[in-house]
Amino acid sequence: MTATAVVGRSRELVDPALRAAVSRLDADTRLVASYHLGWNDAEGHPVDASGGKAVRPGLLMLVGEALGGSPQDLLAGAVAVELVHNFSLIHDDLMDRDTERRHRATVWSVWGDATAVLVGDALLSLAHEVLAETGSEYAAAAARSLSVATRELIRGQVLDVAFERRDDVTMAECLDMAAGKTGSLLSASAELGALLSGAPVGVTAAFAQFGAQVGIAFQLVDDLLGIWGWPDRTGKPVFSDLRSRKKTLPVVWATTHASPAGRELATWLADTAPDPTEADLRHAADLVDRAGGRRWACDEALARVDRARRALAGVGLDPEHRDELDRLASFVVERDL
Amino acid sequence: MTATAVVGRSRELVDPALRAAVSRLDADTRLVASYHLGWNDAEGHPVDASGGKAVRPGLLMLVGEALGGSPQDLLAGAVAVELVHNFSLIHDDLMDRDTERRHRATVWSVWGDATAVLVGDALLSLAHEVLAETGSEYAAAAARSLSVATRELIRGQVLDVAFERRDDVTMAECLDMAAGKTGSLLSASAELGALLSGAPVGVTAAFAQFGAQVGIAFQLVDDLLGIWGWPDRTGKPVFSDLRSRKKTLPVVWATTHASPAGRELATWLADTAPDPTEADLRHAADLVDRAGGRRWACDEALARVDRARRALAGVGLDPEHRDELDRLASFVVERDL
Repeated sequence: MTATAVVGRSRELVDPALRAAVSRLDADTRLVASYHLGWNDAEGHPVDASGGKAVRPGLLMLVGEALGGSPQDLLAGAVAVELVHNFSLIHDDLMDRDTERRHRATVWSVWGDATAVLVGDALLSLAHEVLAETGSEYAAAAARSLSVATRELIRGQVLDVAFERRDDVTMAECLDMAAGKTGSLLSASAELGALLSGAPVGVTAAFAQFGAQVGIAFQLVDDLLGIWGWPDRTGKPVFSDLRSRKKTLPVVWATTHASPAGRELATWLADTAPDPTEADLRHAADLVDRAGGRRWACDEALARVDRARRALAGVGLDPEHRDELDRLASFVVERDL
Repeated sequence: MTATAVVGRSRELVDPALRAAVSRLDADTRLVASYHLGWNDAEGHPVDASGGKAVRPGLLMLVGEALGGSPQDLLAGAVAVELVHNFSLIHDDLMDRDTERRHRATVWSVWGDATAVLVGDALLSLAHEVLAETGSEYAAAAARSLSVATRELIRGQVLDVAFERRDDVTMAECLDMAAGKTGSLLSASAELGALLSGAPVGVTAAFAQFGAQVGIAFQLVDDLLGIWGWPDRTGKPVFSDLRSRKKTLPVVWATTHASPAGRELATWLADTAPDPTEADLRHAADLVDRAGGRRWACDEALARVDRARRALAGVGLDPEHRDELDRLASFVVERDL
């Protein structure tokens, strides 16, 4: 099974349960949530737009299947992590004033700020409702892990917002932010797969570490795509993160590792003039590359995937499941590099 | 024990546990949450400002004590409902662009929109973290009840936001909105007190009904105070709800029960000119009164408290606990009428 098939299967498994959960929301909130998830347009007519890659539920299901967990409980966990992920996307788009996600207008840009706040809130709360209903003896442990991850997610976004006003962001801070914004929920997804399967503490911790490392790799690739990515695959225009002078991992690596290109990049980032030209952006991207930021991010992403695999070395898994987990980790770095 | 003492005792019991929960948040989020809860000023210096009336945790603790629940589990439930209440206040203040709460500047007005979104999110998530950690066999049922209430809270706020753009709001819709915005969390507070004590279904349902009726009474009194209240007690200027031409329960009663004063009030509400004068506001308040809206809201609040008491008629309670619950229900309507 290819990694794309693994992730695609997860979308197919999780979508019906996700739809059932969202159907409980009041009509107004449901319409907006269903739009965001790619199921209907803004008027409520069914469409088949992208609801995202379903990496988090896919990871949770793979881990749980490898450990022999109850499919029903795992499905509830998968729905819960996908709901938390989408809650954070809707609120982050509002805070960052991003107007486009997955090739479509963002919730706040269509319905306004209040609706974006409320629909995000509803998805976060619904995640806990779904978990609490499993009747699983592990539901409380799963809810706790999901809450701690949400707290980390928020901490990461607090840092991200603060970075915008700072020009002295260090590599350590930038990695810490990525661990919060992306690592925490991928870590919790793998951890929930183990927790809901009743795995012992050591195994649960190994999977949490696996997910956290995959998460950092994921963020590194996202940051590379945010500079050099293909718009038709990512839904983001090329140079998009540079256009907003965002302090992403390859950029901060470049500015904090002494080189002429890095110093020029730091000066460019500190410039507050709006709307840099295409030539400006191309030049800035070139500076990140020449200062070694691009190469470092590629190497680091691969190193993190390797570290993720090693975290599972001591866990007893049959070859087929280990192979699927390997493929999922690879998928994260290989998607568009 | 007087009702004020009952509620005051709840604040004393719950505050240390609430502080312990909030202390887990990252430093930035903790500062803002602690400001909102009245524990420090915007710079982090300790102050002793009002953190609200603690009616929800007070109700939960009273119900749980009456039913012999575990004090530790009840305390966790009390913290959880207070966290959900404050999450909704922070987000509602942002959506409604209210600049003052409890005599102090609101979170969004001090720190901006993004911080208000994030701090509210953190408190909602923390509520579930606290519940999940109890180790109680009833934690999942409590989490589910709290999530359903949060969903209702959101539904109520969606209606409230929509009412602002409508001039044909019916009494039924207005009562439904109040049930969502205020009834649901008071209902869940009483229900959690019973659930966490392991009460049978019938008893849990009776307390949920008790809380729901107290909640509507609470909203009716809030609406009366929003027109005729004393600013030094409520932290809201007199006529504040009229200034924003808000469709509150006494106002909608007045406009939907045919009378000359009611018709004049409806015309006044439809006027979109900003900043009505003090004389305008006094006249509008007088129209609500002459159309019978004030009298109806007073009578209805008392009727709801009576209905709340009757919901508990079949529940076996010792006289002391029944008396305390009676006092809490009375406190809600008597606070400033």
